[in-house]
Amino acid sequence: MEAFSFLLPSQVRESSSFFNIGTVVALCVFFALLCACIIIGHLLHGNRWANESITALLLGLCSGVVVLLVSKGQSSRILSFSENLFFLYLLPPIIFNAGFQVKKKQFFKNFTTILLFGVLGTVISFCVISLGVFLLFKKIGLTSLGIKDYLAVGAILSATDSVCTLQVLSQDETPFLYSIVFGEGVVNDATSIVLFNAVQSLDVSNISGLTALKLLGNFLYLFFTSTILGIAAGLLSAYIIKALYFGRHSTDREVALMMLMAYLSYMLAELMNLSGILTVFFCGIVMSHYTWHNVTESSRITTKHAFATISFIAETFIFLYVGMDALDVDKWKSSKASPATSVAVSATFLGLLLVGRAAFVFPIANISNLLKKRESSKIEFRQQFIIWWAGLMRGAVTIALSYSQFSNSTGTTSPDDALMCTSTMIVVLFSTIVFGSITKPLIKAVLLSRHKPNVSDATDLPSLEDLRLLFIENGAESSEQGSNQRKGSNLRLLMTHPHITVHYLWRKFDDKFMRPVFGGRGFVPFVPGSPTEAADESHENNVSDRAVDS
Amino acid sequence: MEAFSFLLPSQVRESSSFFNIGTVVALCVFFALLCACIIIGHLLHGNRWANESITALLLGLCSGVVVLLVSKGQSSRILSFSENLFFLYLLPPIIFNAGFQVKKKQFFKNFTTILLFGVLGTVISFCVISLGVFLLFKKIGLTSLGIKDYLAVGAILSATDSVCTLQVLSQDETPFLYSIVFGEGVVNDATSIVLFNAVQSLDVSNISGLTALKLLGNFLYLFFTSTILGIAAGLLSAYIIKALYFGRHSTDREVALMMLMAYLSYMLAELMNLSGILTVFFCGIVMSHYTWHNVTESSRITTKHAFATISFIAETFIFLYVGMDALDVDKWKSSKASPATSVAVSATFLGLLLVGRAAFVFPIANISNLLKKRESSKIEFRQQFIIWWAGLMRGAVTIALSYSQFSNSTGTTSPDDALMCTSTMIVVLFSTIVFGSITKPLIKAVLLSRHKPNVSDATDLPSLEDLRLLFIENGAESSEQGSNQRKGSNLRLLMTHPHITVHYLWRKFDDKFMRPVFGGRGFVPFVPGSPTEAADESHENNVSDRAVDS
Repeated sequence: MEAFSFLLPSQVRESSSFFNIGTVVALCVFFALLCACIIIGHLLHGNRWANESITALLLGLCSGVVVLLVSKGQSSRILSFSENLFFLYLLPPIIFNAGFQVKKKQFFKNFTTILLFGVLGTVISFCVISLGVFLLFKKIGLTSLGIKDYLAVGAILSATDSVCTLQVLSQDETPFLYSIVFGEGVVNDATSIVLFNAVQSLDVSNISGLTALKLLGNFLYLFFTSTILGIAAGLLSAYIIKALYFGRHSTDREVALMMLMAYLSYMLAELMNLSGILTVFFCGIVMSHYTWHNVTESSRITTKHAFATISFIAETFIFLYVGMDALDVDKWKSSKASPATSVAVSATFLGLLLVGRAAFVFPIANISNLLKKRESSKIEFRQQFIIWWAGLMRGAVTIALSYSQFSNSTGTTSPDDALMCTSTMIVVLFSTIVFGSITKPLIKAVLLSRHKPNVSDATDLPSLEDLRLLFIENGAESSEQGSNQRKGSNLRLLMTHPHITVHYLWRKFDDKFMRPVFGGRGFVPFVPGSPTEAADESHENNVSDRAVDS
Repeated sequence: MEAFSFLLPSQVRESSSFFNIGTVVALCVFFALLCACIIIGHLLHGNRWANESITALLLGLCSGVVVLLVSKGQSSRILSFSENLFFLYLLPPIIFNAGFQVKKKQFFKNFTTILLFGVLGTVISFCVISLGVFLLFKKIGLTSLGIKDYLAVGAILSATDSVCTLQVLSQDETPFLYSIVFGEGVVNDATSIVLFNAVQSLDVSNISGLTALKLLGNFLYLFFTSTILGIAAGLLSAYIIKALYFGRHSTDREVALMMLMAYLSYMLAELMNLSGILTVFFCGIVMSHYTWHNVTESSRITTKHAFATISFIAETFIFLYVGMDALDVDKWKSSKASPATSVAVSATFLGLLLVGRAAFVFPIANISNLLKKRESSKIEFRQQFIIWWAGLMRGAVTIALSYSQFSNSTGTTSPDDALMCTSTMIVVLFSTIVFGSITKPLIKAVLLSRHKPNVSDATDLPSLEDLRLLFIENGAESSEQGSNQRKGSNLRLLMTHPHITVHYLWRKFDDKFMRPVFGGRGFVPFVPGSPTEAADESHENNVSDRAVDS
């Protein structure tokens, strides 16, 4: 009856030996710290250096020190969290919410650039870091690591941490940078899986051109199946809610169904060995485009804020945990390296991180610029600089990967492996605290030094104007005549303005085939579900739309 | 590194031996079943026999059978849940939400009756069932159980299951019955703790009048400290949100803080060996009275629906789990009893449950009627009958207690102990499915057979009229003169109309001292926080108030 050994009914507490007081104490401390983070974060709001993640990280560090002192150097952790908790419960709501609240137009407009950064960029960074570690570690004096360890370090340090990006970049202030850096992080997940598996099953003696082709094939399979699963889950939820009209009975059922379906999509992707991050991200996008418009007004407000709140709590929780985990004494003890070696390894990691990211951001940005004709849609150098900088932070994902590679479950870790863990930890702390706190002022200084602050980032506006011109050029949409002629015109437009026309064609397809089936803005008949909606649905609708669906 | 043995980062999935595919499969199945429950529950809405808990229970039973067949009789469970999950994560949101959405006036008006049922009633039921088991089990042929086991069975079967009550009774249709039966369940928790601890530390040879007095003292201590802790947590959250004015920056922080503080109050109560259920219930009441009015309009809608949704998911989850757990093959195998003995024991339990509840509901209701002067506030016989009936269901709490008493963590269970577990399971299934499905039609048949359907249950209305008369009698409130004279008049009123005047005095105290500090309806200055509020705060406010604060 192992399942019941962890028993805690209030009725048998004092009398039962099953009661695990440690869990309750840990939960109390963690929830109290979370409350403290929220209050401090609120008070520091507007401070140009601090942000929520740094507050949580420092608070976690402080509590780690306190626990370390109280337990007399035995342990700095009060709750033995697993990566399980992180990947199964904390990460999905964060990524889902990011997809749910992302500015879809901005995201899809930059989709090619995002794919280039996420796929090619990750591969370049992986190669640079692996090669650098291979060359530099011998000079430091680390020799016990094998070729697979070097490649693993490359993969670990190249795994972009989407959670950090979310905290540092603001979608409202810098939508273009946000969509590039965050989008890269999402696509990066699929690339990482392929790379990591390739490293594990690598046969060093037998590398040919075919291997690269196979990897590309794997990536494409993973990318498309994950995306399609996410889209399917989103569409299914939209269809169920539209067809059964849940709002008639209860707004809670709608909200519950959205939450559960989103989570189910992540779990299914994990079950099918796909990229859960990609799946749940696209599920979020589809849900915000269709499902969200099919529910009652109360459900709309509730989902918007509830998802954001859950994601916010999960993020804070992660940083708090990382801060607390940084003082993992076992690791520090197992690593018999001198402080000098520790610093050298961490500095090497940080240096390679900077170089590895620079090695793909600037070249890819410039190649992407060459392919674009319009001056306004090109990525300026100052923007490139910020993309480079904002993607430098590493967080819980990196730690989880590092632990899984260099720490085995039996508890015995070799000194060099322990050194890898502690050095990764230092990289995470340093990058989050130092790079993280500099990012906000840096973006302000670099981007807003111009006189026209909006132009540099708001590449969205010109294209919208173009779109409006195209609509006029194309004539009235409603007339059914001359559709062949229009098709020819569409083809011509596709050649000259690819992005704009793809968006226009999608809109037409969406309005004609998708929305009538799956619902969406303006395609759900209004039936008053609750007093709140009956009052002024149309007004509320517009306000909320503006917030989520822009 | 046990903490990391349960690792599941998507990046290392295929290559890592840490990957526990069982957890992911279990989560997938559970979330899919939850979705199915919601959809089926929606389709069955309005069906007079079915309700959500029965649907979930039956669906859990069916999946248990499927798992049993697939695993060829090895196991019916796919997720080895612990009571830990139940008491730490599922129960708190349900009870908090019940406090948050309870009709406060109705609840406090019946507070004396609730206390009588919850304290005296639980003790009577405990005595009757224990005595009955003691007398009847020897006739069935069970002799291996000790005196403590008999007393434990009494406590287990007397522990009212608030979760079942919530599902079967409707607060809107039968507010009086709901407040009595649910309120009894909440107070019952504190009584159960005292009783259970008393049973465990019972020295059979040394029982005197002092023991009973000690128990009463324990109960009073537990009841008051738990309540005060909950109220303090609620007031603290109200004060923090009012003083720091969180809505200025983000609605998500407000919602997060409310969630975290509520959960923290439960954890603190558990840590201090108090009744977490009582604490979180009163925390919910205070939060809905003060905190809820201090947050932005979006936060109000979000909290109202998010708490209800989380509670709804948790409830469905519990019933699903109970259904699945019912086919715990290990228990059925360890219990070597013949089907006849199993049926006899379960029937004994059910019979004693009926008798034990009848033994306190009817006497206490009649005593309470004798103390009341007004005819309209007396509990009619048909209401007594429904109170008796609606409190018969047993659920997850009973199972958790039964497992903790009769199932030890080493996995070896004696046949008679296993029989107790399986019989409790049968009682839970039978009471939930049979009693549960009859309750709704029964209430309709018994209460609505009259011509005036509202009068029998809406005892609230006359007292409100009385209150209005008292206000007029009492003259203008705003004049500061004649306060002594009014005090005398208040005292006189307290004697003649205790309930109404307590409520009136509380209102005055609330308006004068509490609301200026902690906020509350009408005591928070309106400042537009987000576009949604700016539009028509006052209207929205009224609508939402009506929903939560009636």
